[in-house]
Amino acid sequence: MSDASADLHPDVAALAHLLGTWSGHGTGSYPTIEPFEYDETITFGHVGKPFLSYGQRTTRSDNGLPSHAELGYLRSDGTSAVELILAHPTGLTELCEGTIDGPTITLRSISVVGSSTAKPVRAVERHLTVEGDRLHYVLRMSAVGLPMTHHLEAELVRQA
Amino acid sequence: MSDASADLHPDVAALAHLLGTWSGHGTGSYPTIEPFEYDETITFGHVGKPFLSYGQRTTRSDNGLPSHAELGYLRSDGTSAVELILAHPTGLTELCEGTIDGPTITLRSISVVGSSTAKPVRAVERHLTVEGDRLHYVLRMSAVGLPMTHHLEAELVRQA
Repeated sequence: MSDASADLHPDVAALAHLLGTWSGHGTGSYPTIEPFEYDETITFGHVGKPFLSYGQRTTRSDNGLPSHAELGYLRSDGTSAVELILAHPTGLTELCEGTIDGPTITLRSISVVGSSTAKPVRAVERHLTVEGDRLHYVLRMSAVGLPMTHHLEAELVRQA
Repeated sequence: MSDASADLHPDVAALAHLLGTWSGHGTGSYPTIEPFEYDETITFGHVGKPFLSYGQRTTRSDNGLPSHAELGYLRSDGTSAVELILAHPTGLTELCEGTIDGPTITLRSISVVGSSTAKPVRAVERHLTVEGDRLHYVLRMSAVGLPMTHHLEAELVRQA
């Protein structure tokens, strides 16, 4: 999703450390489901405009089958403000706003909307940190009537 | 975005004709902007689950620079119902519902949500038809206080 010929837009310079492909392992839990483990690949790209493209895909560690996926964009105006605009194949759109603080991005949904066939998710919190070649994130979620509750944690390594 | 080893999920069999990559040319207009022309590439993929991934990118025909982009998913439950879950780098999420009628998909937004820095879009209508190796779409939009108004029309050809 990158255009190698374009320079990174200065408004997203503070997100430059995310660019590239990351692979790793995560664990998921929620009060209403069995805990699970997953393998994940995340890609951040850019085309020289003031946003990064974002895509991730996971497979279940127990059977290797595709599990979750997300596609969207990280957007900034050159301040510490950042927005995440996301589509989920589960029928949800997610719009988050938050802040960039050095290697750490903290986001909270301002809107989660579900189609008529989607499971009800009310809110999402995402915390993402890059340290050297390691990307770590935690995701908390308020869904199916429950308050904000831990859901996902993963650590990924930058791919060559 | 495809996993070539997976069979297409039967719930999205009616969308099989979309799979692959399409390239072509489009024209855009809106009462508040100068008309413009664009070149576009669209890709539909799948991983064996009941949705297709969808991504598009356009470049301005006059200067070749990146213009719009969208990422998301088309989702169906095997009936004629279809959902489009979309993220826009302009800070918008778009959730559409509609119907599949043979080679034609008609969608209308049930939700368009903008971040605090996004331009106000109220609703979107999308009409997409495949005839052989040609994909044609029309997009209408209610934005910046205007009623539903023609915005985009393009014709793309399936790539080998």
